[in-house]
Formats: sequence, structure tokens, C-alpha cells
Amino acid sequence: MKKAVLITIGDEILSGNTIDTNSNFIATQLKNIGFKVVQIFTISDEIETIKKTLKSAFEIGDLVITTGGLGPTKDDKTKKAFAEFFNDTLVSDAETLEHLRQLLIKRNREHLFDINLLQADILSKSKVFQNHNGTAPSLMVEENGKIAICLPGVPYEVKPLIKNQIIPFLQEKFEQNFIVSRIISVVNFPESLLSETIESWELALPENISLSYLPIANRVKLRLTALGKNEEILNQELDGEISKLRPLIQNHIISESGDSIEEILRDLLISKKLTISTAESCTGGELSRLITSVSGSSYYFLGGICTYQTQKKTEILGVSEKLVQEKTVVSEEVAQAMSLGGQKLFKTDISLSTTGVAGPNSDEFESEVGTVFYSIRVQNFEKTFKLYLPHLERKDFMNFVSMKVLQDLIEILIREKI
Amino acid sequence: MKKAVLITIGDEILSGNTIDTNSNFIATQLKNIGFKVVQIFTISDEIETIKKTLKSAFEIGDLVITTGGLGPTKDDKTKKAFAEFFNDTLVSDAETLEHLRQLLIKRNREHLFDINLLQADILSKSKVFQNHNGTAPSLMVEENGKIAICLPGVPYEVKPLIKNQIIPFLQEKFEQNFIVSRIISVVNFPESLLSETIESWELALPENISLSYLPIANRVKLRLTALGKNEEILNQELDGEISKLRPLIQNHIISESGDSIEEILRDLLISKKLTISTAESCTGGELSRLITSVSGSSYYFLGGICTYQTQKKTEILGVSEKLVQEKTVVSEEVAQAMSLGGQKLFKTDISLSTTGVAGPNSDEFESEVGTVFYSIRVQNFEKTFKLYLPHLERKDFMNFVSMKVLQDLIEILIREKI
Repeated sequence: MKKAVLITIGDEILSGNTIDTNSNFIATQLKNIGFKVVQIFTISDEIETIKKTLKSAFEIGDLVITTGGLGPTKDDKTKKAFAEFFNDTLVSDAETLEHLRQLLIKRNREHLFDINLLQADILSKSKVFQNHNGTAPSLMVEENGKIAICLPGVPYEVKPLIKNQIIPFLQEKFEQNFIVSRIISVVNFPESLLSETIESWELALPENISLSYLPIANRVKLRLTALGKNEEILNQELDGEISKLRPLIQNHIISESGDSIEEILRDLLISKKLTISTAESCTGGELSRLITSVSGSSYYFLGGICTYQTQKKTEILGVSEKLVQEKTVVSEEVAQAMSLGGQKLFKTDISLSTTGVAGPNSDEFESEVGTVFYSIRVQNFEKTFKLYLPHLERKDFMNFVSMKVLQDLIEILIREKI
Repeated sequence: MKKAVLITIGDEILSGNTIDTNSNFIATQLKNIGFKVVQIFTISDEIETIKKTLKSAFEIGDLVITTGGLGPTKDDKTKKAFAEFFNDTLVSDAETLEHLRQLLIKRNREHLFDINLLQADILSKSKVFQNHNGTAPSLMVEENGKIAICLPGVPYEVKPLIKNQIIPFLQEKFEQNFIVSRIISVVNFPESLLSETIESWELALPENISLSYLPIANRVKLRLTALGKNEEILNQELDGEISKLRPLIQNHIISESGDSIEEILRDLLISKKLTISTAESCTGGELSRLITSVSGSSYYFLGGICTYQTQKKTEILGVSEKLVQEKTVVSEEVAQAMSLGGQKLFKTDISLSTTGVAGPNSDEFESEVGTVFYSIRVQNFEKTFKLYLPHLERKDFMNFVSMKVLQDLIEILIREKI
């Protein structure tokens, strides 16, 4: 397997202002064509640091991809560092300049500024990947059989460049081994206990198959990755190992295919022909966002409502005012009434509801911050759950609860044989 | 300013399975107490790699913080690498063991497994920060005036450890300079043009004040950071520089205080005493999630509805069937009817609506993928916008559109003097 090293350039990541999502995307894409990312450097935008890091990166990798530091402003120095590192000079490229001019015309800007002109400068020995969504082109330099590629930093620009141009280029350039991986989603099984349970199976895995544990919310994803010359044989090997694993943890497996909870749910709902809706409060829309974040969700998701204000729960979902006064808004009973109201409003098989306090402040009933009730209704079946998550920050709380609701729904759909 | 280096350990980041959000959080927290993160290494879970990286990190930083590689499973090797690097031995710590025992009892698990016991091993010369949300403790080692701290990898465990224990510890340990920063949010101003416009102002900034550009969606955040001994003087200096900047870009500034669009919106809505609701389609709940992701949003956000299926737009929002047939569901007219329906349903001052196609597949009207109309209604004022974003992936599309809706709302609230 060829080794890749990523270099993320720019102070916005180091200062904590921006989360680096590019590395994640690039690593996933590279994995599919047989490159393993062995290290990621996140560095500041200084020529000497960039050059020093390029040197370290080439010591461990066959392919080096940088993101960031190509913008037009003063703090962007990647291209200069590349030129110095590769003993090359920067020259203005007519084709890139024309591409840039067309792009700016599309954006209703006829005038090119001096700093825009500089963006058409390329290393004399580089190959250019034109950027259709921004002004900085991507450049590729090859030396001693190793490759360096620099990309802009904006994720919206990086993704299409990687997917449509760089991956096809690398695929053609290198002929790689096949990689096949499978993800087994395990729930209600603490990582340490799981590890003890499957230890002897893990130790007996053949050398070309590796296992990793990926805990996410309270699910553990076991990823098996197989490497070899023949795709069919790899699939057979994985089938064999998984059939040995299955009896050890059977009741805890919720999926052997999907990766994210949303994808697992999609496959289940489509195969069972069930429709779904949401009636949220404390999750603020995160639950419906998660469900709709996968393509195909319009086949089963009919709609969602977020009744944030207590009065809206009464007006729109028909939760009785008396019930709210008696039980308070963060209660099992209100969660149940909300999911019933949602099911009626959207006319769906499945209805999910959440009511709780994300914090940091409490509600008008002084409910305890971090408490949440959620109700899962599948046709006539209903089950209510309670969670207490006082240590989670607001956004994490909204996300964790929503993930857990979907995970419990999946378990119900599997266990209750609906 | 003291220098910090972060090391993220574990294959789940390198493989592209997990996005590293810990570094972002830690960098932000460290910045507040005067530490600048100068580099981040993301490495695999191998003892030799960890030791080599610790060495590189100590060459450039005064403080080294690692995350990951402390779990109970076989692929976690950080603690061993720390012991070897610091020529120390691992010893079982009675206090940590007792803490672990209590934690597992709370989780209804009375029995400690062998691999759980190992989690109570600490370096003999380390200080322990007990982990209240997981089984791996955080350890601190001091050598030659420099400090190394290892943390688990799970974000829900990292955040409280950093916030409640590590930051207070570092604050007491080091007496640092004051750091004051301001964020100016600029819209409708391409980065290159902005940079040209404020170049001479930027060049004239005093040495202790630095400027960085943070483009996010189609807003640019200008961050001014001042460093010095006296907080009051720093604030005066920043006020002075900002008052020189203001006339250069006045019409493009939407905020001089808030950081995120959601926070800027919160401050505006609370000060203007306006309520808000959402009527979404293609954004799938992301718009209401964004609004509710900041604390205090329950003061102005009354609720949101996501009518994903076309029929629900008619049934719940009162969008006429005839209009949908005539104009198609992704149209200016349907966006307007949706925001009107939302305003009536939730009885709010402001109503926002979105209708579009996130892709990758089109809808029943074969609308072009990436097209979206959104309507912003503030009392009797209404304005409709169109975006065409065919290159964005589904989740990015939902997020970009929602950010843009809120940004345009902020502009309307400021410009229209509502």
C-alpha cells in the first residue's frame, strides 16, 4: 500500500477558528484507491516551516498533498515554498490566467487585480489542475518518482478538485492493490468488554486483514480492511472472518454494511417500506437534519416539526396544556404525546420525538439541564427513553441525543421484527 | 506567547473515519490563556512514531498535548510510549483504580476486566487528572520546564478534562501575557478585493497586533489579535485600529462582536425583540439546528417545520396545490408561500423558508440539482433569493444555504432598519 502524507497549511486551523475537514475527505478518497495516509502535519503559513515539513513528509510518504496557503492575501505562502523546495521558478501561465479571467467574469467581476494575476503563477515544471470553484489552481510536481500536490484550503474547492481531477490522475499513474473493507456496527457492548470477547478471533486474523475499533456515540464500529491482488478473493476472506465473528457478538450487531447511522436507517426504511417524521424540541432540528443528510431520504422522510416553545407543542402537536402543567414539559408523558401528535400531523408509520434541556440554562419548569426524554413510535408500538447528559456542550448534546434516537429506532426495527 | 504543540494519535483520523474536532477545541481554549498552537501532528498509534513525534514536538513547543491512544484495546499505545520517552515506568495507581471502580459501578458494571485494570496504570512521576466521563485518565509529566499531557481521544471526555482541569492547571502554572481579540464580520467583499482595500491599514498595524483572514461561506472574518501586559490598553489599541478600518469597508461590516452567524443573529434578535420561525424543505432541519445551536435561542426561536414531502407543504403550510403545479416546487413563488405559511403557523415576526434540490438526485419536477430559492419575511417585508450550488455535496449544501439565509437576514435587519 502506498503511503501518503497530508500537510494542512494555515493559521486558521492552528488558532482553533476552523475545523480541518479537508484531511478527512482526502484520506477517505485516497483509501479507496489504495493510498494509506500515514501522517498529517498541520503547520503555519511560513515558507521555512513549509519547506521543512515537505522534507519530513517526503521521508515517510510517496505522495504529499498540501491544502491551504494558496489564497491571494499576504499570509499565503505555499507556492513560494514549493518553488524553493523544488528549485523551480514561478512563471505566469497563460491557460490558468484565461481560466481565472473566465471565472471572475462569471462572478460579474471584469477587473483583475494585481493579486489575482499572481494566482496564475505556477511552478515551471508543474502540472495544473484548474479550479472551477475558486481562484487558486492546484499544482502537481513529480520528482524521483514521488509526487507533491498543492491544493487551496476551502473545502468547497478541495472536494471537487480531489474527486474529479486528482483521484483519476493518481489512479492512472499508480496501479494499486485492491482494498476491501467492511464495517460491523456493534451496540450496547462497552469497548473493553467487546475487545475481551473477540480477542482470540482478532489474534487469528490473517496478516492481510486488519481490524480497527471506532467508537462513536455509544456504538462501536469494527472495521475490517483486507488488502490483496484479487477483489473476489478478498471478499470471500472477509465473509469467512465475519461469519466466525458473528456468533460471538450476534445480539449486538445492528449492521454489517452501512457506515453511518443515517445510512443504516435508510437501508432499513427503504427495505421495510416505512415512512418517518420527527417532532423535536431540545434537538432543535438536528434529528431531521441527520435523517435528511443522506441522499434518498425523500423516499421515507415526509417532514419534521420543531416545537421549541411549549405553547407550540399544544397548538400544533395537540399536547394537552393540562399534561404539560402536571408532568412538566420535559417528561415521559409529553414525549409520548409529541410523537403521537407528529404521527398524526405527518401521517407516517414512524414518529420520533425529543423533549429536554440542552443547557446551559434550564427551562420555565426548572428541569435539570442535560435531561432528555424521547419517544419512538412505530405504527402502534411505542417506547420512551430517558437520557441524562449534563456534561455535554449544547451542540454535542443535540447531536448525541439525535444519534441515540436513530440508533434505538434501528434496534427496535430489528428486534421487534417490524 | 508560549508555544503549544498538539499530537493527535490514532488511525481513525488518518483513515478518514473521524474528523479531528479535539484540536480545534484545545487550540481555542489554549489561545484564551496565552498559548499559541504552532503545529499539530496527526500520527498513527505506534510506539516508535509517538516517541519520535514527542521529540519533534518538544523541539518547537513548551507544552505538548496528545489526544488518543489511551483506550483499553490493543491498538492504544500512548502510555507506553510516554513511559519510554520519559525513562519512566508504569505503576498501578490506587486512587485512579478507585476512581475507575466508582465510574464503572455508576454504569452498572461491577466487574473490572484485566484491561480495565491496566487503565489505572500511570507514569510514576506523572500527575493525574481523573476522567469523569470515561475510563482513561489524563496524565501530566514535567521535564526541564516543559510539560507533556496525554488525554483520551473521545471529544466528550476531552472537553471537560481540558476546560475544568487542564486549563486551570496551566493558568496557575504559567503567568501569561494578556491576549485580546476582536472579530469583524465582512460580507459581499471578495477576499482579494478586501485585501487590496485595507492593505495600507494592515501594513500600519503596530507589531503587537496581528490580522488574519478567515473566509467562511461567503463571509470573511477579520480577526485582530493584540498581545501585551495590560488588558485595558490592549482594548484601547484595538478600538483605535478598528475605528480606522471602519470607514474603508463600512457598508460591508455586519458585526464587530459576534463570531458565528448564529451568535450575531442572537444578539440582533434579542436587542430588537423579534421572534423567528423556519419553514424548511431542502435544508432538512439544518436551518433550525443552526439557530438553536446557541444558548438563549429559546427567547426568540418559537419553532420550525420541515415539509420535505411536497404534499406536506400544501397540508401544513397552506401552499396551494395549483401554485406548486404551475410554478414547480422549487420556485420563487413556493418559497414565498412557505415563509407566509410558516409565519402564520408559528405566529412569529420573522419567517424563513427554503425550497431546493440538494442532490445528488432531482425531485419529481426534475428541478436542477443545486438550485434553491429562499424567502425571508420580517413582519410585512419580504425578499426572495436564489442560489445555484451544483458543486456542493449534500451536507455542505444544506449547511451553506442555511448559513447564507441567516447572513442575508442579518443584512436585512441592519440595512432595512427593522
